[in-house]
Amino acid sequence: MKTIITISREFASGGREIGKKVAEELGYKYYDKELLQLIAQKEGYDVNFLEEMGEYKTDSLIYNLSTMGLYGAPSALGGGMSASDKIYVLQANLIKKIAETEPCVIVGRAADYILKDNPNCLNVFIYSDFESRRIRAEKLLKTDKNIEKILKKKDKSRANHYRHYTDRVWGVAKNYDISLNSGKIGFDKCAEIIVDVAKI
Amino acid sequence: MKTIITISREFASGGREIGKKVAEELGYKYYDKELLQLIAQKEGYDVNFLEEMGEYKTDSLIYNLSTMGLYGAPSALGGGMSASDKIYVLQANLIKKIAETEPCVIVGRAADYILKDNPNCLNVFIYSDFESRRIRAEKLLKTDKNIEKILKKKDKSRANHYRHYTDRVWGVAKNYDISLNSGKIGFDKCAEIIVDVAKI
Repeated sequence: MKTIITISREFASGGREIGKKVAEELGYKYYDKELLQLIAQKEGYDVNFLEEMGEYKTDSLIYNLSTMGLYGAPSALGGGMSASDKIYVLQANLIKKIAETEPCVIVGRAADYILKDNPNCLNVFIYSDFESRRIRAEKLLKTDKNIEKILKKKDKSRANHYRHYTDRVWGVAKNYDISLNSGKIGFDKCAEIIVDVAKI
Repeated sequence: MKTIITISREFASGGREIGKKVAEELGYKYYDKELLQLIAQKEGYDVNFLEEMGEYKTDSLIYNLSTMGLYGAPSALGGGMSASDKIYVLQANLIKKIAETEPCVIVGRAADYILKDNPNCLNVFIYSDFESRRIRAEKLLKTDKNIEKILKKKDKSRANHYRHYTDRVWGVAKNYDISLNSGKIGFDKCAEIIVDVAKI
């Protein structure tokens, strides 16, 4: 039985929805934005800012330099780090603590890497074809902006963020125990497979 | 219902065994070395030579130049190609033909790429942790040679072969519909998941 399920996912591939189904089915706690809310509460950050910095870290030196002083050093850390680095460390510490405390599903936040030495983890990657994601993103974002551009930018940012903090390439099957194409397999069946394997 | 299952796999990850179970369960024909036997019969090649060239193509120009004249041009092709290129084309043509003819499981041979436009395909990638593969390779190969070296060489050759013929990176989750860590999930459960998804 695996007590911690990490779900990495492409934007608009249904990873959150699948993660919620899995958590519900197994009776596990579900963490996604909830992690950020805990950090926001404790450290005085804004949740939306945390979300942007916590998964879409920019590689821009100027951007990071500009944020180094702006938000102050959180209580647990010294100064001098960029905001995204600070947030990564806070998230990583929190994820490790939660994983020791209770059975849970953690979506995103490079949790697969942060918990890579934890034998109780099942690491999942959810992705989908571009067209299915475009349709889903259109519904989720409700924007007039070019959805394809947004998707491509999100993909690139997430890959950069993952590489920056893990030194791994985003989307390589071997980083996970199961990878599923949610567009082809369907959200319900994906959740069913994950629950089934978690019970081994 | 998917009528063609392609299984790409790391050496000694159990891909063949899983593929055979899937074929048996679905009542599909199983192709692996069988493809090579068909080509060997028709074109007068030796099966062992075909196996080595058909999945472990070397990038060495000298090697390819040396094989260009040696084995003669197969009947279906003109001369001037390297032996591995000739074999790839023969395999690709045969795989496309088989996929049109009957429900089947095809293991290896870059079948996922060759049939990438076929909507009846379910593409699977099977891999495992190094230690599980080492133990399995030891049993399979029965050799005194350094198993770890053999595994690393096979991994490299297979990745090179795949990149050379498909222009894709070996092991990227998005090339497949499902990727499974057979060492963690077990061969039987892997086969069960594939059969289950094929029936969607």
